Amino acid sequence: MKVVRTEAELQEALEPARVSRRSIGFVPTMGALHAGHLSLLTAAREQGDVVVLSIFVNPLQFGADEDLAAYPRSEEADLEMARDAGVDVSFVPSVDEMYPAGRSTTVSVRGPARLLEGAARPGHFDGVATVVAKLFNQVRPQRAYFGQKDAQQVAVIKALVRDLSVPVEVVVCPTVRESDGLALSSRNAYLEPSERTAATVLWRALQAGERAVEEQATWEVVEKTMEQVVANEPGVALEYARAVAANTFEAPADGEQVLLVIAARVGRARLIDNLPVRR
Amino acid sequence: MKVVRTEAELQEALEPARVSRRSIGFVPTMGALHAGHLSLLTAAREQGDVVVLSIFVNPLQFGADEDLAAYPRSEEADLEMARDAGVDVSFVPSVDEMYPAGRSTTVSVRGPARLLEGAARPGHFDGVATVVAKLFNQVRPQRAYFGQKDAQQVAVIKALVRDLSVPVEVVVCPTVRESDGLALSSRNAYLEPSERTAATVLWRALQAGERAVEEQATWEVVEKTMEQVVANEPGVALEYARAVAANTFEAPADGEQVLLVIAARVGRARLIDNLPVRR
Repeated sequence: MKVVRTEAELQEALEPARVSRRSIGFVPTMGALHAGHLSLLTAAREQGDVVVLSIFVNPLQFGADEDLAAYPRSEEADLEMARDAGVDVSFVPSVDEMYPAGRSTTVSVRGPARLLEGAARPGHFDGVATVVAKLFNQVRPQRAYFGQKDAQQVAVIKALVRDLSVPVEVVVCPTVRESDGLALSSRNAYLEPSERTAATVLWRALQAGERAVEEQATWEVVEKTMEQVVANEPGVALEYARAVAANTFEAPADGEQVLLVIAARVGRARLIDNLPVRR
Repeated sequence: MKVVRTEAELQEALEPARVSRRSIGFVPTMGALHAGHLSLLTAAREQGDVVVLSIFVNPLQFGADEDLAAYPRSEEADLEMARDAGVDVSFVPSVDEMYPAGRSTTVSVRGPARLLEGAARPGHFDGVATVVAKLFNQVRPQRAYFGQKDAQQVAVIKALVRDLSVPVEVVVCPTVRESDGLALSSRNAYLEPSERTAATVLWRALQAGERAVEEQATWEVVEKTMEQVVANEPGVALEYARAVAANTFEAPADGEQVLLVIAARVGRARLIDNLPVRR
């Protein structure tokens, strides 16, 4: 596995693949890799000729009062995991390499980026769209892999790819969970033991919501059901529990793929989760 | 020459070039082609294997009170000129093809896009950056050709390419002028005969500014010199006459490439021109 830290090194590493038109699968991450990332790397390994991982804690997608400085960093362990997963090239740029002085371009997605996470984290999805647009241009993959866990990010990236005709196929892989249902997240590292137990309430609320959907409850009742489950868990502060259309994150219309989405604070961690449902 | 109107047709037309890794030179235009565009096509023909022209009057880059409806359209003559210039593929998409319903992504460049044309035409450079980012993804050229005449657009596109790591070389071709100095522009078609004569004042002002630079005048005096030339021409309303750094469009610092830039209204036409100078 090659580890490259500049765009020039990345291009040099990928040139043989481009010349021979081998397909590139790309997994962009912020590091702190866990089994969720591993599932993306495994899919990229199975479906493509060359697997590229990026590790970049993107400052643009953190708000001023968010956890940029505290965000877990574990480059050595990440590269070890990448090697074991069959990654060919790991791109680990510095902030200065990605954003030299004088940077003045921003990619903004309205639509799915306006609501819920977008409302809770102003500028977050502009930061995501900008870095992903740049990484796509640097790596030029045929396929790029994202986790269903960050469902609104997926909707934003699909909109970006569609609107700007980015020549990449966005592959979404299922959320990976602990045995008790907690969705894997690098931010789970912030949880104290008692918080770790309480954090399963997100998954329990989503499951209760799903049961209500199966029982033909209205979306309003489905949302109340999820809220009630969280309300019964001390130490967890609900931010939202909603049923939304998967592509727009607006209220669902008939026949649209629906997502139950939830966000809550547990201790220092702000956690999100979601569950696709059909009615 | 192939004329294609959808992205799918474009990809089909370009696939042989991609497979054989022939270089693609791209000239994005809004049609109403003149000798200025022709110089771009000629450069693309000389430097690349495959020449792609796009003709798309991009509504995003027109303000609500601007000349979108009136903008000259001459597709048949444009395609004839393209054929004669050795263009291989002309991409002529509809607005619906480029911007289907639900479009929600915008590319914004601050920096050079904030001032002068950016201030006079709010949203203009967002529209330019968004369509150019999309066209670059659709065509994926090795080189793209732009006219020096639209100097601030060039600065915006260079910033976009740098900031988002777009894998394209931006080639800037000199402004093409009528024998009396008027810079070629599709908008010159708006000029009545007497206005056409008066419009040469932009070039006369730039030349007077250049002489002042050669005589070691301060930038302030250079600007006043240009303003004075325009003030002596009845029927021409100056918008600005400035000396700016070519990359940032801010006030020039020592040693930077300087542009004299000018904008004025002549009859229904809003005209711009510029002249690179060295001190």
